[in-house]
Amino acid sequence: MERTLISETIKKVGQKVRLCGWVNTRRDHGKMVFLDLRDRSGIVQVVGDEKLGELRSEDAVEILGLVKERPSEMVNEKIFTGKIEIQAESVKILSKSAELPFDMGLELKVQLPTLLDFRPLTLRHPTQKVIFKVQEKIVQAFREYLVQEGFTEIFCPTITATATEGGAELFKVNYFDYEAFLAQSPQFYKQICVGVFERVFTVAHAYRAEPSLTTRHLTEYVGLDVEMGFIESWQDIYQIADKLLKFIFSELKKIKPEIESLRGEKMVIPEVVEKTPVFKLREAQEKILGKSHCQEPDLSPEDEKKICEWVKKEKGSDLVIITHYPTEKRPMYTFPDPEDPKYTYSFDILGMGVEWVTGGQRLNDYQQLYESIKKRGYNPDNFSFYLQAFKYGMPPEGGFCLGLERITQHLLGLENIRQASLFPRDLSRVDVRLTEIKK
Amino acid sequence: MERTLISETIKKVGQKVRLCGWVNTRRDHGKMVFLDLRDRSGIVQVVGDEKLGELRSEDAVEILGLVKERPSEMVNEKIFTGKIEIQAESVKILSKSAELPFDMGLELKVQLPTLLDFRPLTLRHPTQKVIFKVQEKIVQAFREYLVQEGFTEIFCPTITATATEGGAELFKVNYFDYEAFLAQSPQFYKQICVGVFERVFTVAHAYRAEPSLTTRHLTEYVGLDVEMGFIESWQDIYQIADKLLKFIFSELKKIKPEIESLRGEKMVIPEVVEKTPVFKLREAQEKILGKSHCQEPDLSPEDEKKICEWVKKEKGSDLVIITHYPTEKRPMYTFPDPEDPKYTYSFDILGMGVEWVTGGQRLNDYQQLYESIKKRGYNPDNFSFYLQAFKYGMPPEGGFCLGLERITQHLLGLENIRQASLFPRDLSRVDVRLTEIKK
Repeated sequence: MERTLISETIKKVGQKVRLCGWVNTRRDHGKMVFLDLRDRSGIVQVVGDEKLGELRSEDAVEILGLVKERPSEMVNEKIFTGKIEIQAESVKILSKSAELPFDMGLELKVQLPTLLDFRPLTLRHPTQKVIFKVQEKIVQAFREYLVQEGFTEIFCPTITATATEGGAELFKVNYFDYEAFLAQSPQFYKQICVGVFERVFTVAHAYRAEPSLTTRHLTEYVGLDVEMGFIESWQDIYQIADKLLKFIFSELKKIKPEIESLRGEKMVIPEVVEKTPVFKLREAQEKILGKSHCQEPDLSPEDEKKICEWVKKEKGSDLVIITHYPTEKRPMYTFPDPEDPKYTYSFDILGMGVEWVTGGQRLNDYQQLYESIKKRGYNPDNFSFYLQAFKYGMPPEGGFCLGLERITQHLLGLENIRQASLFPRDLSRVDVRLTEIKK
Repeated sequence: MERTLISETIKKVGQKVRLCGWVNTRRDHGKMVFLDLRDRSGIVQVVGDEKLGELRSEDAVEILGLVKERPSEMVNEKIFTGKIEIQAESVKILSKSAELPFDMGLELKVQLPTLLDFRPLTLRHPTQKVIFKVQEKIVQAFREYLVQEGFTEIFCPTITATATEGGAELFKVNYFDYEAFLAQSPQFYKQICVGVFERVFTVAHAYRAEPSLTTRHLTEYVGLDVEMGFIESWQDIYQIADKLLKFIFSELKKIKPEIESLRGEKMVIPEVVEKTPVFKLREAQEKILGKSHCQEPDLSPEDEKKICEWVKKEKGSDLVIITHYPTEKRPMYTFPDPEDPKYTYSFDILGMGVEWVTGGQRLNDYQQLYESIKKRGYNPDNFSFYLQAFKYGMPPEGGFCLGLERITQHLLGLENIRQASLFPRDLSRVDVRLTEIKK
């Protein structure tokens, strides 16, 4: 008999089906045994007698049974296909689970270290698994929007010879007898590829040897990177970024009911307005944060939160675009505002209190870029490969980047960014705790 | 005036347009100047007088002009929108190119080292650029097929604490004070995620510190990885792989004319038959290669070629599935054939003479996998994280992997795999030659 997915059982009331999945939870009532069976499509209740008695959580099983409607007063709102149940007729154990180290019932009540120590197990819990269905959707929407706008997807290397932005937080790789680094971003490659495809995007791993354990940093993360040439004004860049975010939100809205049912809590899709509010940094500092902030070169996390609260209240938008960050705070390839070169054609898009997108126009003139590299104290010879792209005709261009785990974290209101990475890496962990591996 | 893409000009005969792009080539005939202008959508001829005279190849320009039909005898078959040309009215240089180090005309006649030394420039040549449009299409088709089959896209880390398959060809990363590695494949993660999502795929970077310069190896490459649980027989796995390849070919067929026009040569889409021929390794050796090969544990590149030629001739298929490789030649997680445990439930799919896909069923029983790890001389403690997935109920499962650059190379008949990587890394190069960077 062909396998039926749990999500399809609702169409087969009165029929016999073959289900495959994992025992999610088990409850005994006298001689009756109730299982919640979980497969990739959902969860369903299975009812049976002693023959279900030998099963326990996480056993992988195959169940033959009859699909029956449940009395409506019994329907559990938290279960996806709660309107039906399966009367089990026979059970086959495909793979027996060891006893679980903790309860994997309706709620998963473990602390972060346990959540991560037992990642292969805890990821199976519907509240964890759903995080990565949301993440998948974000990436799908990202690509769909950009392909439709004429962008080409590129695949950039992560082993590099040069630090992209000069920072110190680099992982060194022993590359045969040479010293190479793990890329901090695909920045140089996406810019080079503007010369080839005009408009490019990439879903790329990026690495930061950040020596601090915060709730918002990972040492390896996924960046959603975009770059576009032949821009007519630098505002083109944040407009695309803004529309892209809105498209992602509209795609997430489509799976909101499913997400909420799996998470057992409401999901907040950001509210947007047609024209997302735009403020220069100095303007936002003066108008929203008060005059005393006007000399600060950047926004603190607290500032970002305050600005977002104000914008939400005054403009009804969960997004706000902040532009013109000081030149000193932005990388050497950032395009200075010709009217006031202390500031740049750069922007951040803040969403619900946090920076979600960072971007700007880039220096596309070879000589200016060369000078800017020198001015920052770097040796332009180390950038000769990158500089070729500008030597041979580079139109006005710019781009931006979103951190995939960060946006997943904030859209789902997760406390720690590690919850938004399947297998998070940090100062103390690479799957296992570092103390368990060789120095 | 709004920008018109070159591919759209054909709909605007008799109208004035604004084009943006790069000067692809320039030809002077007396006072007349002919340019080929290139943008992301195609190439078009621009005709003008002296005012085009100051332009040279790779200048990024904006041109205002009139769209005119060309006399049909003038149409150059190699140019995408060859039926029309643009009568230039004004030109604006957006970014001036330096003089090119070599001719970037219709053909790009440079040797591989030059092709790679000047990658930011040479990638712009239509014959190079098109390789990565094909590559993009392969990945799009890969994802489209799998999403439709219920697979979830996952994002796996590349910094790992353990060698996936125990090999020596690992890059070491200085991970704070610890020793980590760059992943040779996302194998463990995709298997772990079968326990979560049942069916997963990932487009993942993989690293091999292969200390040899061949035409078929890169030190960093992109793997298209697939893994699926609740299989009913191990043949399920190669059947999905086979259908996936066929879907990719059918998607490539759609862009074949465009690819051929840009490359200036025919593209061969593999021929397939409904039931792709399947041979056990020993069968293929005996029947096709002759009895003397029957003790060889694996196929040499020469053998693979011979088998493909035979299958093409006898069965009309460019694909052939070879199964049952010896246990000793396959990784420790491979499922042995219960009827003859010297051989495994493993397969390669050969395409047009080369191994394109490799895969098989995996050991899903915790105890068997544990023993297999020990038997290969590894310490199971180093695999404790991975092993969790099997400890807590893992259904029968398997998967496979395609190398993106390899399949791109073979589909386009490229001599060297480096031509199929935007920024190839090897023993001697990380963008620049290693001799140029620090030891």
